[in-house]
Amino acid sequence: MDLSTERDWLQTLLTGRIPLAEAMQLKIVRLDGQGIALAAPLAPNVNDKGTAFGGALVSLMILAGWSLPRLALRRAGLAQDLVIGRCEVRFRAPVNGDFGIECDWPEAAAVDAFVDAARSGGRARLDVHPRVVFNGELAAGLQARYAAI
Amino acid sequence: MDLSTERDWLQTLLTGRIPLAEAMQLKIVRLDGQGIALAAPLAPNVNDKGTAFGGALVSLMILAGWSLPRLALRRAGLAQDLVIGRCEVRFRAPVNGDFGIECDWPEAAAVDAFVDAARSGGRARLDVHPRVVFNGELAAGLQARYAAI
Repeated sequence: MDLSTERDWLQTLLTGRIPLAEAMQLKIVRLDGQGIALAAPLAPNVNDKGTAFGGALVSLMILAGWSLPRLALRRAGLAQDLVIGRCEVRFRAPVNGDFGIECDWPEAAAVDAFVDAARSGGRARLDVHPRVVFNGELAAGLQARYAAI
Repeated sequence: MDLSTERDWLQTLLTGRIPLAEAMQLKIVRLDGQGIALAAPLAPNVNDKGTAFGGALVSLMILAGWSLPRLALRRAGLAQDLVIGRCEVRFRAPVNGDFGIECDWPEAAAVDAFVDAARSGGRARLDVHPRVVFNGELAAGLQARYAAI
């Protein structure tokens, strides 16, 4: 697989097709075997307190988490849509500057099971755990479940 | 209390101070003894599938939920900031048109206890349950806890 092509494809999909992703000015800064990392500036994502708006943090974590199963489907040549079913958020520390979002690939066995289920038209679900990192510290975390439909 | 003044104050606070709220084009359509209702158009909140982006739904529910304890603090003349601590989201149905967000006031006893705790500098927390309504049906729900700090 060509990671730079995948990264361009994903960046275009996110900010080209989702106006809010463009408004948040998200950039993919890493896409590799470990996972994905996004960066976002504070200014378009700020709240009334001068810190990052919780909804922006959740939105960016949802997009980071969505990117990995979306790529897994693409690599398998599968055309299903991918939706988020539920998620749980913990906000741990205020973010008062530009920040990053990271999400690691789940275990290979879980990804394979997800792709196999999607291929056979079965119940394809994948849990991922994106997080917001600010100044090297965990600022927020998401437990999210995605479904191929 | 003057609800129209409160509504103007809150609308300005949300879309005037939070760029993403402005980008989502949220409008307060009701503020009364039952709670708050927002409306948002699909276009700025759409995703790659032509339905509402989950992050936008969460962001709007977070803002609807935040508005009620924020108003309770204002009515009590308290200057604390109000932050979201954690939340849990269920996405139930796709939203493929303009939609609404509703949040009812919790029981009066819970709101009073929240305000009393904030006034005395104690542990002030309030749980609220905003929801997305589309075509008269529940499309997503949020369980959120806010804290005065």
